Order: sequence, then structure tokens, then C-alpha cells
Amino acid sequence: MAKVAIIMGSASDYGVVKKSEEMLEKLGIEYETKVLSAHRTPLEACEFALNADSDGFEVIIAAAGKAAHLAGVIAANTPLPVIGIPIKTSFAGGLDSLLSVVQMPKGVPVATVAVDGSENAAILAAQILSVKYPHIKDTILEYKEQIHDEVLSSNNKIKGE
Amino acid sequence: MAKVAIIMGSASDYGVVKKSEEMLEKLGIEYETKVLSAHRTPLEACEFALNADSDGFEVIIAAAGKAAHLAGVIAANTPLPVIGIPIKTSFAGGLDSLLSVVQMPKGVPVATVAVDGSENAAILAAQILSVKYPHIKDTILEYKEQIHDEVLSSNNKIKGE
Amino acid sequence: MAKVAIIMGSASDYGVVKKSEEMLEKLGIEYETKVLSAHRTPLEACEFALNADSDGFEVIIAAAGKAAHLAGVIAANTPLPVIGIPIKTSFAGGLDSLLSVVQMPKGVPVATVAVDGSENAAILAAQILSVKYPHIKDTILEYKEQIHDEVLSSNNKIKGE
Amino acid sequence: MAKVAIIMGSASDYGVVKKSEEMLEKLGIEYETKVLSAHRTPLEACEFALNADSDGFEVIIAAAGKAAHLAGVIAANTPLPVIGIPIKTSFAGGLDSLLSVVQMPKGVPVATVAVDGSENAAILAAQILSVKYPHIKDTILEYKEQIHDEVLSSNNKIKGE
Amino acid sequence: MAKVAIIMGSASDYGVVKKSEEMLEKLGIEYETKVLSAHRTPLEACEFALNADSDGFEVIIAAAGKAAHLAGVIAANTPLPVIGIPIKTSFAGGLDSLLSVVQMPKGVPVATVAVDGSENAAILAAQILSVKYPHIKDTILEYKEQIHDEVLSSNNKIKGE
Amino acid sequence: MAKVAIIMGSASDYGVVKKSEEMLEKLGIEYETKVLSAHRTPLEACEFALNADSDGFEVIIAAAGKAAHLAGVIAANTPLPVIGIPIKTSFAGGLDSLLSVVQMPKGVPVATVAVDGSENAAILAAQILSVKYPHIKDTILEYKEQIHDEVLSSNNKIKGE
Amino acid sequence: MAKVAIIMGSASDYGVVKKSEEMLEKLGIEYETKVLSAHRTPLEACEFALNADSDGFEVIIAAAGKAAHLAGVIAANTPLPVIGIPIKTSFAGGLDSLLSVVQMPKGVPVATVAVDGSENAAILAAQILSVKYPHIKDTILEYKEQIHDEVLSSNNKIKGE
Amino acid sequence: MAKVAIIMGSASDYGVVKKSEEMLEKLGIEYETKVLSAHRTPLEACEFALNADSDGFEVIIAAAGKAAHLAGVIAANTPLPVIGIPIKTSFAGGLDSLLSVVQMPKGVPVATVAVDGSENAAILAAQILSVKYPHIKDTILEYKEQIHDEVLSSNNKIKGE
Repeated sequence: MAKVAIIMGSASDYGVVKKSEEMLEKLGIEYETKVLSAHRTPLEACEFALNADSDGFEVIIAAAGKAAHLAGVIAANTPLPVIGIPIKTSFAGGLDSLLSVVQMPKGVPVATVAVDGSENAAILAAQILSVKYPHIKDTILEYKEQIHDEVLSSNNKIKGE
Repeated sequence: MAKVAIIMGSASDYGVVKKSEEMLEKLGIEYETKVLSAHRTPLEACEFALNADSDGFEVIIAAAGKAAHLAGVIAANTPLPVIGIPIKTSFAGGLDSLLSVVQMPKGVPVATVAVDGSENAAILAAQILSVKYPHIKDTILEYKEQIHDEVLSSNNKIKGE
Repeated sequence: MAKVAIIMGSASDYGVVKKSEEMLEKLGIEYETKVLSAHRTPLEACEFALNADSDGFEVIIAAAGKAAHLAGVIAANTPLPVIGIPIKTSFAGGLDSLLSVVQMPKGVPVATVAVDGSENAAILAAQILSVKYPHIKDTILEYKEQIHDEVLSSNNKIKGE
Repeated sequence: MAKVAIIMGSASDYGVVKKSEEMLEKLGIEYETKVLSAHRTPLEACEFALNADSDGFEVIIAAAGKAAHLAGVIAANTPLPVIGIPIKTSFAGGLDSLLSVVQMPKGVPVATVAVDGSENAAILAAQILSVKYPHIKDTILEYKEQIHDEVLSSNNKIKGE
Repeated sequence: MAKVAIIMGSASDYGVVKKSEEMLEKLGIEYETKVLSAHRTPLEACEFALNADSDGFEVIIAAAGKAAHLAGVIAANTPLPVIGIPIKTSFAGGLDSLLSVVQMPKGVPVATVAVDGSENAAILAAQILSVKYPHIKDTILEYKEQIHDEVLSSNNKIKGE
Repeated sequence: MAKVAIIMGSASDYGVVKKSEEMLEKLGIEYETKVLSAHRTPLEACEFALNADSDGFEVIIAAAGKAAHLAGVIAANTPLPVIGIPIKTSFAGGLDSLLSVVQMPKGVPVATVAVDGSENAAILAAQILSVKYPHIKDTILEYKEQIHDEVLSSNNKIKGE
Repeated sequence: MAKVAIIMGSASDYGVVKKSEEMLEKLGIEYETKVLSAHRTPLEACEFALNADSDGFEVIIAAAGKAAHLAGVIAANTPLPVIGIPIKTSFAGGLDSLLSVVQMPKGVPVATVAVDGSENAAILAAQILSVKYPHIKDTILEYKEQIHDEVLSSNNKIKGE
Repeated sequence: MAKVAIIMGSASDYGVVKKSEEMLEKLGIEYETKVLSAHRTPLEACEFALNADSDGFEVIIAAAGKAAHLAGVIAANTPLPVIGIPIKTSFAGGLDSLLSVVQMPKGVPVATVAVDGSENAAILAAQILSVKYPHIKDTILEYKEQIHDEVLSSNNKIKGE
């Protein structure tokens, strides 16, 4: 069964969201992706959130842009941890999305990653799951090892230029 | 029956919201005020919005701060015009509230007024109602006359200093 | 007779404004569009605003960029509700336009939509008119249904990728 | 006859504007001060601007805050040079006022000084008048000498601490 | 044993951090608090992070202000989920802290909450732990119920004013 | 003799500055253009400013970008009115240039126009000169008439689309 | 002889600048402090900078606020390293000062520290001098040890609360 | 032996960093360049910094983007002066990088240059070294002479257009 639900506010966000999917696949974590808008399908969004726990999801990733209310609306209706991805916009590079996602009032947090930080949302989801599933912690450590080695070996690349 | 519903995300916003009430009273427009949070009472907020039209409201004012999702969530669930008041915060004077209220995606507008623009939210509500109720247009014209005269007579004040 | 007047500060804003026209057409609402600048044709802009009510307009949409004074100047001279569209600029994506339109002082509100939020300006105009004209409320509900369905059906699209 | 007109959008701006008056007095330049709002007394503001030249004014200073349209509206209706003072607000310290005053579109400049830069508006007015009146240039040079000497003598002050 | 480690960059952040402690206590979650600076005690900060997993911590909360590197530095050295609290500063209300915490590059996420969002950091920690510990999910649901009821009952308060 | 001196901080600013030249030509005002950097040719910049008055210049336009000190440095060394053009940069569209030009401390104003507001700098220069030279006021009025007519006739254009 | 020159744009900056003096004293480094304004005493500022090297200074600290040109003007006239302290203002907490100091164009760097980062300017000056004077490196290492120990011992303090 | 170490957070920053290398070469200063990430290779980054002094480096340049912690992390672990280059991002042109680099807390300065100010980082490194090595001061003076002459001769270029 899928452990991570990925929700995006608009199919046009899929270019960014796809990188979450790819990272989750790389980390061996099952996921399910849906387009659900806080503003255009508000009831479906609420319903999804209300059922997410009993549907077996353990973490939710929500991506949205501009007045990005999706992550907050999902978090309002579930006890599950919700990760928010602010989508880049033409307004100062996504300042609107970032503030709409991160500045949540007391009581309802959204675990916010960087603007367009799609891979990091997936890694954070994996870290959250790893608290329960030890094998995921191993996968994360391997991934950290891999990016560590990539940095070190990139030194050869710049010397070749 | 109340024509205008005023919703605020937290009772702590009432200091600002009160000025909307006072302005609506001044303009002779009935209203009803409620605290309803998009994040802490999401279902009540949706339900309120879904029923607002049949409950006889004609315009909704929604005030909230920080990641201010309330106006957007209300607008998502009603065909009525929704006016958003971004509440001032300590983050650049309310930049977070402003962007969370105004930058609504295509399909679901929020008629946004200035940060803490509580009186203007009431005046805008009156202007919207005046499209249907001609006597409100007269009241608005009187109000405009009054603030016009106040500006002109304030010239005496500064000369007295 | 046209119910909505659309005013823009410069013919170069027409690319954005056109989407207001198209949305109003879609919603079955008559409109009239004019280029009128607060700075280059100030008297015509005032005169337009002073006559807008008696000319039969019921809502005004005003689009302008940079130090975008048009909506405020129109609102100063009419009791009608005025909707402001801040046009995107190269300055932080339109921060200048947004603040110039939305931060109106007490007494003269402008119902501000998102930067380049042209369709939403039209929808907001329709919502305002719907207070008076019940059939427009039906059209809005249909439109909301349509965008609701589009979101849900876009789920097929991303699965196909 | 007064050479400089000082206009402010609200009597509440007089605390800032007074420093323009004091500086003009120090520089020996006649002025006349008025409260005129672009939004609450739009026609008087336009009329003032249209007559300013024939009324004998040679430079206009306009101070306003938030969506500060006053300087732009005055500049739209006169060939005289218009100096804009953005008034400090609680929104990022006056970012709204600054952008609303300075970001004027092509064709209608406003000579903008710093947020709350009231003395500088007066000095700039004097510099503009000095192009025509050579004795004002002497006064400016004396003033520059004075602030120059004040800086140098302030060195004693910090040594005394 | 403590499940949550709370780290702050400076003892002066304790006023904010204390609210995380209080919320964790309210939610029945054990924690341990330490002052550790990424810049003044870099090796201790790294060492803490490297050992956090084997020391039995399951989630880490890191609070810091200005160029707030603490959360990122901790996240670099542990597979555990790291929650970042950007501390409010006098620079635009904490824009510096927020961007330094949230804009993490690919590979090393920090789950960022609002500026000074200390209670939410604790709630998010609880949500993360609840994936593993079902009783914590119950506590979260109770807490959500409580803040829900507080909002509804605050309606009496504003009516009493 | 040239009445207006145009100074730019770098030859790369000439694309923007050229529009000042073209506007001054259109308005029939003589000018002289120089590249002079506050940072790379500081003494020449000071010397230019110290001599500008006796060299017969009556207004100075200074264009620079980023930490744009040129206008301020020129203004420090001359009693003449100095107009500053903040050049657009990739940093939030020129926020750095704008603040470096406009936020001048008390005593030394720079008459700031919009980011890249090159034509407006020329028009402002003309307005300043028109205080002394009545025929320039006529030219400005003609120019205002022309842009007024252009706006009105642009209405045909948008109707043709 | 003094190795470090501290320059401030206005005696009102001395409250901040004093902390540079105190830190330099703590680190055993001689200094000399002067008020010199880029805008009000431009020639003295240039002259100071031109002579700073032959006068025996080895590093210069320059503090200024708003359109803070002082550090840049000093750097333009000396080969010595120049450290800039942006002074906090009411404009977004010093965003104007920061950008005016740090965004120097190619060729003339200013080593910028945080807004009001007065102690850090002194420490950076010491680090620069330590390249030449090995005993200063020892002092820096001792200082780093001291703040390291202070952080660790502050843990007792928060436990006592 | 190399006097300057250049560190970058990612090989993708090399396009910017290369200009530091070229400028150091032009100024006759030896350098060594490495990719080291504060987040992906934290221990190597610390180790590099801890050994930099004994390895014979005298100045360190660190370039990073987004939540740019590299320069701060290096500075935390060495007494050497550390120059930070904030790399341009799509977020408001690098506001995130700039604030993450420059807003360092008391005790651990980073000498910050402009966003993408790669050449200036090299020049600043040279200025720092010139305190100890007089011949580098001569090279800097020659470089200053050269850019001075380039500005003056660029006047011919714009006249040719």
C-alpha cells in the first residue's frame, strides 16, 4: 500500500511534483499522486485529508503555488504530518507561495521545504517514515553517501574544464 | 436579516475587525460576525461558506493573518463575493498575510483590501450591495462627501499648529 | 447595455486585459473596454469615473502597472465597486503594481485581485453583479462546477505522462 | 508670492511635512501648505494642479503614504516639477509608499526623495528654484557648508563620550 | 528516554524555544534541550547530530536566527528528520532567518515552520512520531479537538465586547 | 551650451541612458553625456560635480545600478539639482539600485525616477529647466498633449484586435 | 600607531560603531575613529581614503545607513581592504543600507558584515590583520575559544529557568 | 604555495567561481579550488576549514547559493578571514543566498561581496593579502588604474554609437 500521498493544486505543477515521485521511487517508497485543488475542489480536498489516515497514508506531500492554501487545508483535516512544496511563481521567484505555505498559525504546522524543493519533500517524507521503518533509514544513509561521493567526485569535473 | 457576514480567523483579530462592524453600522448595513478558522475549524468554515448564500448573506468579509487561507477557503465554497482583509503581522508588516489573501489562482477571486484595511472592507461590501440596493449608493455618496469635507476642513487644523 | 467597464492604463496592458473580456463573455456579461491613463489622460479618467454610474455601468475593472494609480483614481470618483488588476512588471514580478493598487487609504477601497489576475477580475465582477442578478449566480455556479470537473479529470492527464 | 506648494494626502502626514516647511523657511523660500487627497478630494486635487502654474507656484511637493497616488495625480495635471515624499508606513517601513510614488510610468515623472525625506524635498525644491534664482544657489551652498561643518565638529562629540 | 532533541543557536532564543518545550509536555512527549551553535560550537553541533540517532533521538528541532545555519548543519549530519524554527529578527521580521532555514539545497531538507513557530515545531515533531506511535496520534487528535473548540467558544468572547 | 549633463556609471548603462538623450532631443534641450564611475573614477566624478555649475550645466542626470552611488556622489559635490536613474538589475528587478539612489540621508537629495525611468529623467530635467525658461514649459505642455492623444487614439488599436 | 580606521557617516551611528571599538580593544588592536560623510564631507572622505595607506592604516571599517555610500566611496579611493557595516534603519530593518553597501559593482569590493554587525566588523578586521601579524591570530583563536565556552556554559542558564 | 582557497558548494557554481580564479590569476595570486558542500560533505568541509591555516592558506573564498551555509560553516572552523559569494538564484535574484551569507551572528563574520560578485571576492582576497605582501598592493593599484582608464576610454565608445 502507498505510504505517501502526493497532492498538487494543479496539473501544471506536475513538472515539479514529478521529481518527488522520482525521488520516492529511488528511495523505494510507495506513493500515490492526485490533483486536488483547495479552491476548485475544496470538498474533495477536505475529504481526502479526512480519510488519509484511515486510507493508510502515513505522510502527505502537498504542492501549490501563489496563494498556496493546499498544504494548510490538508493539514487542517488530518493528524498526519503534511509537507508543503511552495511552487515557483513569477512573483519574486515564489515569495507568495513560500509565505502562504510556511507562515501557518499556531496549531496546524506544515513542514515546508524550499521553493520548488520537490526532491527534498520526498527525502523528508522518507526521513519521517524512517522513524518507524528502520530499513528506510538505511536507504537515506545510502542516499546521503551517494550525494556525498558525487560532490567529492565533481572536483574532477571542474579540474577538467 | 444580515446581508454581510464577517468572519475572522482568530478572536485576536477582533480589534481590527471591529472597525468593519463600526463602518457597516455607520453605513446602515446589517451584519453578523463569527470566529471561524480555516485551519482549526475547517469543516465549520466550509459549511458556513456552503450555506452562506441560502442563509441570506450577500457579501462575505474574511479577515486573517500570516498564511491567511480563510478568505480563499470561504471563496472556494460559495458563489458570493468574498472580501479579504490581510491582518498585519510582524513579518514585514503583513506581507505574508497580503500575499496569502490576494494571490488567488484563476477561478476563485478574493476581493483584497489593504493590510488591516478593515473600514475599506466594509465600504467595499456596501458598494457591492449598492449595485442591488440604490439607497446604499446614496449612503456611500454621503460618506464620500463627508470624508471629502473632513479633508478640506483639516486644512484649518494644520494652520492652527 | 454594458454592465462592466474595463479600463486599462495603457494599450500595452491589453494582452492581460483581454482575458477579462474573454471570461466576461464566457459568463455572459456585457462589457465595454477603454484605454484611459490616470497620468496621461487624467481628466478623461476622472470624467469617465464621475459618469460611470449614470452611464449605466455597475462595476468597473481597472488594470495598470508600476505606480498603478488608475484603479484608485477611478474609485475616488465613483460610488461603484472598482476592481483593480495589478499588471506584472519586471520589479519583483509586480510588487510595485500590487502595492500601488491594494494599499488604498481608508475611505476609498479597491477590490484587488492577484498580479495579472485578469480572469479573476472578471469572475469577481460577475459575483458582484450576481448579488443583483440571480441568473449570474447560476452561471458562476456552473463555472465553478466546470473548473471543479477540470481539476478532477486532469488526474487522468498526469497518469498518462 | 509663494514659490513652493506643499500638498499632503492627510493631516496626519503633517508631522513629517512640517520639516519641509522648516527647511524651506531656513532656506528663505516662501511656501503654501494644503491638505488635498487624491482619493477623498480628487477634483480639488486636480484643480489645484491645473491652476498651480498660473497661480504662480514654481515647484510642488506632494507627500502621501500607502498607495500614495497624490504626487502622481498632481504631476499628471501640471507641467511644473513635482517632488514626491513617500510617507513611512508599517508595511516594511514604507515600501508601499515608496513604490507608489517612484515607479511612475513613462511621460509623467515624480522627483522622489527618501521615505519620510521631508527636509530633502525642501532642499530639492530649493535646488530647482536655484536654476532660476541665483541667490538661492548661494543659500544652498551655505547650507551645504553648514552641514559639512556640523559633521566635522561632531567628531568632538563622539570623542567626549 | 527523550524522543525529541531541541537545539537552539543561542540561549537568547530560549524565550521562543520554551514554547516548544511546553507544547511537547502538553502532548506528553519527552525532550531534551541544548544550546549548540553552528558557528561558535561547530564541532559539538556536528557531533551531536552524528550521534543523535544512536543516542535514541527520533526527531530534532533546531531554532536559530539571522543567517540561521543550525538546522541545516544538523540535517547534514543525521538521517533523522530535522525541524527548523526561524527566529524573528529586526530584519523584515525574520526574512533572513526564514530564507536561511527553508531554502535548503537538494538532498538535505529542513522541515521549516513559521517564523517563531515554536509550538508548531513541537506539534510537527509529535505528528512525525505519531507515524510510529499510535497513541501520539490520539493526543494530536485531542489537541486538534481542543483548539477547534476554543475557536468556536471564542465567539462568545467577541460578542461580550 | 549644454544645459543638462548625463552621467552614467558604466558604458553598459548606455542602452538605458540613450532614451534620456532621445527624449531631451525631442524636447529641444542640449545635453552632454559622459561615463564616470563613482567607484572606478572617483576623483573625476567629484571634479566633474564640483565644476558642473561653473561649466554651465543647470541640471545633472546620473544613472547607475546595483550599489548605485553615482547620483549621491555627484549631489554631494554640487548645488545643482541631481536626477537619479536606478538601473534595472537581476536583484528583484533593481531593488538594490532603487534603494541606493533614493534613500539619501538628510541634506543631500537625489530626485529619483523609476527603475530604468530614462525618459522620465529627461522630462523631469526639462520641467526643472522650464522654471527658468518659459519656452520649455510650452514644449512640455505639447509633449503632455501628445501622450494624451496617443492614449486616446490607442483605443482604436485595441478595438481592431 | 592605529592599524584600523573606523569611519561613520553620522555621529548618530556611534551607538553601533562603539561596539566595533570595544571589540577591537578586547582583541588588542589599535584604532582611530572619525565621523566623515560621503555626502556632507565628500572631499574629506576622499582625502582620508587617499591618504589612509600612507597614514599607516591597514584596514578600514566604514559604517553608514540608508543609501549607505560611505564604504563604497572609501573603497574607491584606497587599495586597503574596506569593511562595510550597514546600519539598521526603519526600512525593512536596514534592507536599504545592506543593499547599498554589499551590491558593489565589479572592481571595488566592500567586505560587508550583517546589518548592525559592529562586533563582527572588528573581528573581521582582526582576521585580516592576523594574516600579517601572527599574534593576532592567537588572539582570535582565544576569542573563538571564549565564545565557544560561553555557548556551552549557557546550557546551565537555560536549565536554571 | 596557494595562498587563497576557493570553495564552492556545488560544481554547478563553477561558472561564477571561475571568474574569481581568472581575477586571481590576473592579480598574480596562487589559489586552489575545491567543491565542498556544507550539507552533503559536512565533515570534509569542517576538516578543510580546521586545517586551512596549517595547510598554508591565508584567505578563503566560499561560494554558495540558496540557504548558503558554506561560508559560515568554514568561518566557524578557522581563524582565517572568509569571503562569501552569494550565488544568484531564481528567488528574487539571490536574496536567499545573500541573507544566508551576510547576516552572520556575532562572533563569526563572513566578508560578503555582491550576489555573483566573483571578481570582487578575488580582489578583496588580494587586498587582504596586500596587508602582508606589499607587492600585491602595487598590483591592486595597477588594477585600479586599469579599470579607471577603461571607464574614461569607454567615453569614446558611446560617442561612436
